[in-house]
Amino acid sequence: MSDELKEACGVLGIYENRNNAGLGRDIFYGLYALQHRGQESAGIAVSSGNGIRYHKAMGLASEVFNDEILDDLTGRIGIGHVRYSTTEPNTLINSQPLVVRYKRGSLAVAHNGNLVNSLELRTELQENGVAFQTEIDSEIIAFLIAQAHSGDIAEAVESCMGKLKGSYALVIMTEDTLIGMRDPNGIRPLCLGKKGDSYVLSSESCALDTIDAEFIRDVEPGEIVIINNKGLQSINKNKETSKAVCIFEFVYFARPDSTIDGTNVHMARLEAGRLLAQEHPADADLVIGVPDSGTISAMGYAQASGIPFGIGLIKNHYVGRTFIKSTQNLRTIGVKLKLNPIKEVVQGKRLVMVDDSIVRGTTSGLIVKILKDAGAKEVHVRISSPPVTDSCYFGIDTSSRKELIGAQRKVEEIREYIGADSLGYLSLDGLVKSTGFPREKFCLGCFSGEYPIDVPGEGKGYLFEKR
Amino acid sequence: MSDELKEACGVLGIYENRNNAGLGRDIFYGLYALQHRGQESAGIAVSSGNGIRYHKAMGLASEVFNDEILDDLTGRIGIGHVRYSTTEPNTLINSQPLVVRYKRGSLAVAHNGNLVNSLELRTELQENGVAFQTEIDSEIIAFLIAQAHSGDIAEAVESCMGKLKGSYALVIMTEDTLIGMRDPNGIRPLCLGKKGDSYVLSSESCALDTIDAEFIRDVEPGEIVIINNKGLQSINKNKETSKAVCIFEFVYFARPDSTIDGTNVHMARLEAGRLLAQEHPADADLVIGVPDSGTISAMGYAQASGIPFGIGLIKNHYVGRTFIKSTQNLRTIGVKLKLNPIKEVVQGKRLVMVDDSIVRGTTSGLIVKILKDAGAKEVHVRISSPPVTDSCYFGIDTSSRKELIGAQRKVEEIREYIGADSLGYLSLDGLVKSTGFPREKFCLGCFSGEYPIDVPGEGKGYLFEKR
Amino acid sequence: MSDELKEACGVLGIYENRNNAGLGRDIFYGLYALQHRGQESAGIAVSSGNGIRYHKAMGLASEVFNDEILDDLTGRIGIGHVRYSTTEPNTLINSQPLVVRYKRGSLAVAHNGNLVNSLELRTELQENGVAFQTEIDSEIIAFLIAQAHSGDIAEAVESCMGKLKGSYALVIMTEDTLIGMRDPNGIRPLCLGKKGDSYVLSSESCALDTIDAEFIRDVEPGEIVIINNKGLQSINKNKETSKAVCIFEFVYFARPDSTIDGTNVHMARLEAGRLLAQEHPADADLVIGVPDSGTISAMGYAQASGIPFGIGLIKNHYVGRTFIKSTQNLRTIGVKLKLNPIKEVVQGKRLVMVDDSIVRGTTSGLIVKILKDAGAKEVHVRISSPPVTDSCYFGIDTSSRKELIGAQRKVEEIREYIGADSLGYLSLDGLVKSTGFPREKFCLGCFSGEYPIDVPGEGKGYLFEKR
Amino acid sequence: MSDELKEACGVLGIYENRNNAGLGRDIFYGLYALQHRGQESAGIAVSSGNGIRYHKAMGLASEVFNDEILDDLTGRIGIGHVRYSTTEPNTLINSQPLVVRYKRGSLAVAHNGNLVNSLELRTELQENGVAFQTEIDSEIIAFLIAQAHSGDIAEAVESCMGKLKGSYALVIMTEDTLIGMRDPNGIRPLCLGKKGDSYVLSSESCALDTIDAEFIRDVEPGEIVIINNKGLQSINKNKETSKAVCIFEFVYFARPDSTIDGTNVHMARLEAGRLLAQEHPADADLVIGVPDSGTISAMGYAQASGIPFGIGLIKNHYVGRTFIKSTQNLRTIGVKLKLNPIKEVVQGKRLVMVDDSIVRGTTSGLIVKILKDAGAKEVHVRISSPPVTDSCYFGIDTSSRKELIGAQRKVEEIREYIGADSLGYLSLDGLVKSTGFPREKFCLGCFSGEYPIDVPGEGKGYLFEKR
Repeated sequence: MSDELKEACGVLGIYENRNNAGLGRDIFYGLYALQHRGQESAGIAVSSGNGIRYHKAMGLASEVFNDEILDDLTGRIGIGHVRYSTTEPNTLINSQPLVVRYKRGSLAVAHNGNLVNSLELRTELQENGVAFQTEIDSEIIAFLIAQAHSGDIAEAVESCMGKLKGSYALVIMTEDTLIGMRDPNGIRPLCLGKKGDSYVLSSESCALDTIDAEFIRDVEPGEIVIINNKGLQSINKNKETSKAVCIFEFVYFARPDSTIDGTNVHMARLEAGRLLAQEHPADADLVIGVPDSGTISAMGYAQASGIPFGIGLIKNHYVGRTFIKSTQNLRTIGVKLKLNPIKEVVQGKRLVMVDDSIVRGTTSGLIVKILKDAGAKEVHVRISSPPVTDSCYFGIDTSSRKELIGAQRKVEEIREYIGADSLGYLSLDGLVKSTGFPREKFCLGCFSGEYPIDVPGEGKGYLFEKR
Repeated sequence: MSDELKEACGVLGIYENRNNAGLGRDIFYGLYALQHRGQESAGIAVSSGNGIRYHKAMGLASEVFNDEILDDLTGRIGIGHVRYSTTEPNTLINSQPLVVRYKRGSLAVAHNGNLVNSLELRTELQENGVAFQTEIDSEIIAFLIAQAHSGDIAEAVESCMGKLKGSYALVIMTEDTLIGMRDPNGIRPLCLGKKGDSYVLSSESCALDTIDAEFIRDVEPGEIVIINNKGLQSINKNKETSKAVCIFEFVYFARPDSTIDGTNVHMARLEAGRLLAQEHPADADLVIGVPDSGTISAMGYAQASGIPFGIGLIKNHYVGRTFIKSTQNLRTIGVKLKLNPIKEVVQGKRLVMVDDSIVRGTTSGLIVKILKDAGAKEVHVRISSPPVTDSCYFGIDTSSRKELIGAQRKVEEIREYIGADSLGYLSLDGLVKSTGFPREKFCLGCFSGEYPIDVPGEGKGYLFEKR
Repeated sequence: MSDELKEACGVLGIYENRNNAGLGRDIFYGLYALQHRGQESAGIAVSSGNGIRYHKAMGLASEVFNDEILDDLTGRIGIGHVRYSTTEPNTLINSQPLVVRYKRGSLAVAHNGNLVNSLELRTELQENGVAFQTEIDSEIIAFLIAQAHSGDIAEAVESCMGKLKGSYALVIMTEDTLIGMRDPNGIRPLCLGKKGDSYVLSSESCALDTIDAEFIRDVEPGEIVIINNKGLQSINKNKETSKAVCIFEFVYFARPDSTIDGTNVHMARLEAGRLLAQEHPADADLVIGVPDSGTISAMGYAQASGIPFGIGLIKNHYVGRTFIKSTQNLRTIGVKLKLNPIKEVVQGKRLVMVDDSIVRGTTSGLIVKILKDAGAKEVHVRISSPPVTDSCYFGIDTSSRKELIGAQRKVEEIREYIGADSLGYLSLDGLVKSTGFPREKFCLGCFSGEYPIDVPGEGKGYLFEKR
Repeated sequence: MSDELKEACGVLGIYENRNNAGLGRDIFYGLYALQHRGQESAGIAVSSGNGIRYHKAMGLASEVFNDEILDDLTGRIGIGHVRYSTTEPNTLINSQPLVVRYKRGSLAVAHNGNLVNSLELRTELQENGVAFQTEIDSEIIAFLIAQAHSGDIAEAVESCMGKLKGSYALVIMTEDTLIGMRDPNGIRPLCLGKKGDSYVLSSESCALDTIDAEFIRDVEPGEIVIINNKGLQSINKNKETSKAVCIFEFVYFARPDSTIDGTNVHMARLEAGRLLAQEHPADADLVIGVPDSGTISAMGYAQASGIPFGIGLIKNHYVGRTFIKSTQNLRTIGVKLKLNPIKEVVQGKRLVMVDDSIVRGTTSGLIVKILKDAGAKEVHVRISSPPVTDSCYFGIDTSSRKELIGAQRKVEEIREYIGADSLGYLSLDGLVKSTGFPREKFCLGCFSGEYPIDVPGEGKGYLFEKR
């Protein structure tokens, strides 16, 4: 159950042709739509062409902003960010956008992803006399651009890109230019929209819908988009790069109403459920999903298997962030607060329980137990992705291999551990097929250990720890 | 779309055989499960047999309580409350439980419902010299019990009940006794559970599940349950009363995993969808629900009609309470922030869109528009309950008749207003049938204008306004 | 050093001839001036003739109120309160004014003082069916008035007064009348002022100055002042009562710029210092005061003795409320944070150190030590009031006799305890003389054990503890 | 009245020989004592030899820190800062200490003063690729040290000092070294103390007293003090520099119990009052001071003139920061809230009213009016410093020349403007004499327009505005 996986961030940028009193509000609505990508801090930076103003704080976008603050965030260009930290401490100093003043004026950077060479870049910059105030990659990126920006901003950004290794979907603004940038593998998503004359950049297309912008296209892997009063200029647009989009965006992270690189997430999950039914049929009475992440694939499983689809678990959406410490049985309580079975539905039934993934296995085991306690006769667990066997180095908090049950146990052992009557994972081929893309398009590192970029081995984990 | 209807409150009480350091925590978990019944304030009162301690504040249970506070809420008896105000201002002074000190010690009262004779009772008490500090019915109830309690608490509570008119599911505690009380019509739900030796009273059974208590039975309409060191004593248990359970609990308010008076809410909604399909078939390609309230009935509609069920709208659960003021297009933005269509699903489709109810009609109209903008060819709206034509006087915020589109327009006019290609409401007979109970069991006031108790006419609306 | 004594409360009321948008602001300014009388909570209640609106919260007036809140507190009549609790827990529920709704409308009560028969009154009211929500005397008073108010409000207030024993300076408002009331002994102060057509009631005259009102006269002991559209009506004005004004108002509580019952506080303290010099001369080089409470009497001492006056200790006014817990040496640190000697002033000097009182003795001892550490050759402590030997039952937090060093030790023992080279207390006669009034006018209970009203002995201390 | 002048900041540093659990608490107590130098934000940074931890926030030290936070601030080295901003916006990002990570580890900087070449330094750094995140001089200083620190930290700090122009009392820490640094003119104060084996650096000696440290000596103008496990090393100690200590520290800023460069502040103010009496005698009955800033000089005036000293104005120390907006008469109310005359003292008297300075003149005028309204027959205003005629460029918020009444009007015009019966300013010679130092020792810029360092003319004021 991927509640245990945490996405890194969501980014958004808007370029308008004239000053707009509602700019901050539009960015705020967009961040609202991207809130699932990060709930720890939120921030917005704007410019009317003369300096950058910003506000950022810990909390959900709806907690960080109010009318008074948004009324101040007027302008022509703005970027926003919602954050979940994967490698750095979760404090205000590390919230984004990061805003700096450099020789050419002001610069703001919002980043989704993770640089694998951040330590090298930091060290190199420090050797040249740079001092860091935060622990985020955005600071490195801002400094690289600030140093490189002597002539055109496009050149500075390109030069910066040449030094970055890892994943990055970036939204950057100077006082007169909005820039979007996606790493050459396109690991994290970034798309482009238009609303009237205005351009919008967003991690996911669902944010475009919310602010009534029209989806134009995805920013391509390796592409830099420069938007200013000369219009939109694209760099590296059709350059050949080895694409490696994170397949987990389709499995879990992205909102189902988003379309990434041409494939709708909901449709991919539905198809994954259908393929899962073909790969791992079950002799059962009812298919249920673990809400909300398993629901769509469960519907697909039901469609393909002919077994009726039902709602067997109710999710309490009020749970949110709770500050109640662990008591002896907290973990159980945590799951019970979130999920409650409908006894009348599951009683006496042989269930297929569909979820999107298994990370540590504990949660899955508790859900199986809850269903059995509620009277389910059998629980056949079906997972719409392969076992997670390896860590992610590109912006997802998968915890270390030691904690990944897929890395530590065989499928039959996992089945036993979670108490299921049977257990079936969708194959990697199946998962890839569900997206409609060829295997080469994806980063499948967490399922295969094969990464699109050299990453430190487990032994070199310090690379991400030392700052 | 019943987001426009607001439930009044949720109540919970626990009686333990010995002091329990985790009492406050258990009540907190229970309130968590009842959070959908009220999000404005939360409170817990406890006793170890010597005075009553309490904490209450504005906000969600998870915002009001933290470990430090819960660690102080130890004891043998406790009650909790989550609140949405229907008639009184929403301020701390009106939060519950209400705790008073009277001649026999301390008393705490938590109330779900609405007294229709509160003005008369207040006036009468005031004539006798009583002064009120709050605007809530719980204060009236506490004062009536305080005055009547000379001998046995049971007599005092019974005497109090004799004076109350309206709806009330009450959880009351003295320093040594826990009391549950449900109005003679049983308008608001209240059930009884056990966890080991401990008794639990709760508005809904889902809270029993969350704290691992076993459901025993519903408190009967007109019944008083007295729990103390002599065990559980029931008053009026099998007394003949004219039952009038609020049918809207099944339509919208209660959590689907709750079972009220013997019928599971999820099952009733599923059946309502099936009956709706029979009453109002549609020539369509896909059935979708308006999440979350319409989803289950949509599944029922799909089952009965043979039209495939799909997910066409994604709900943003982070929306929550936002403090952003109205801009010109706020209402639209409000809906767009909450709901986004999946274009790939709805495009080119003739849709059946199922929701649980239509109150003012504005929201439904916006959702139809959103779906059509996303490419839906036709939108056939199906509502799993009849038109809401009359105000509720028993604890639900239906707003006045003037605002109820069901009171002001005919079905065909409503269809036109919301821009649907067709519109069908489930009949009152169908709705009743979906619950498995006879019509006489329910209060159907909001659909029929026939109330189980005399209520003030619209002209007498002041009755609820003056305090 | 009387920082260890805590005053109970400050009250203020304004009656205007017409609605005033600035009413809340004027009351706020007045509370500001009375802030020294209580820093725990602040509240304001106002009426335009139709219901009472109010705001109260924990904290200083400047923390509790802001522009938005004050803008809402418009009206014709209003009362305000600042509070330090002496007998009840310090929580929001116990903050004032207390506002109730009774048969004749709304009523708000703000109280400074302490009823010695509160337990009896509570019990009696409870026997008659009353239930209490707070622990403050104001609730008793509100209930007594609510019960008695059938005809004229004046009669109700008089009847209530007949039942109260103890100290009370009360400011009460209905929707159309402002009432002031001072107990027959006049223990706590209350004065009357005018600002144009408007009447003002205040604990101290300094608040009148702040809001540009003219001082008219003190409310007399036992007097009730009724102000409404018929003008000002006085009850019991010239009735003979046995006056017993708290002399500690002159010693420490009141602000020096206030005039109580005709004597200016600053002048009384100056005179006390002069008399102290006569009673206890010292062979010394410099007179210094312990700021701020001892400064004025130190000046008087210097004048009468001919020894130069100097500033030897600097007070840090930022100390305020600090939330730092005790470490081993907290008490010392507490004093050191507040007071620092000027070495250049005290070095090598034989000092007279004047303070207003000694309660527990610990603080005085620490100040003597600080001065000696800074190089003072001798420290002759002079106290401008007699030893505090008995508890106060009328609204001052003197702690119990056990903690009062004046009750436990002789003067020579105290001198030794605090490490002074000599110690002299002003005699009771001297203190009385400093005020210009006869001894009979005062309550001298804390210095003599003789109280104007029967009070419970130490053994009956429970009277104030049980609620 | 110098409430209108705002000091820039207070700094403090402690180096201990071993880890100390109470380090953060000691720094906190020290900041408490320096709170008068800045009330906008407070911060503490500490190190145990391995990284720097810190906490900073808006507000008074007592609001920013609590036990939990202080318990975490353990270590061997720590620095603290309280701030009032003079040139930069007052936001969290600009609070201090500023902490950065550079090639040699971590570095924290706390600064009191103002660099006059900050714009040049920023521009130069930016041209070399540096990007700034704050608007404070500390960031410039940190970057200069970070760039220069290749060998010894002492060299890096010296190299940094070579580039700074303006005023700076700096406390800097690396993970193992505490550094103090005072600008070559010694404009802002900085002193050195010892507590056992530990070294303490502080803006003022009063903070040493509070934490029981012994005053050793002032850090000399131009001196750098390096403290680490090799002990204390001094650079430039006896170097000849042209001293230019800010004389306003003696007039108003410093606490009277502090001793700066060998002269006690209280003693200097007393002497200034005496000299003022000689320069500007008055035929009067009573000398009063405007509390708290004018009190000491008033005592000196009384001593020298033989006119009795009295307290004629009571200051309300609770006023503090209030968030109440301007109403028509706010300015008047602001003064009335702060100061109230004692009518009994001033009535019918010919007063000498002593204050430390006049900035804009409005406040002085209001106080004169208040005294006359209270019955003063004459008010002879005496100021213990010369007219303020020029802006300060070294860390004091004097506002621009346009607002300085001393720059705009002659003394007789000022007298008329403030409504005084006579007005006398202490001469510059007199002021200098009061300190016991020669004129060459001081920066007298605000009184004479002659600055120790080239400063931008009024026309170049942008230098401090542009960032």
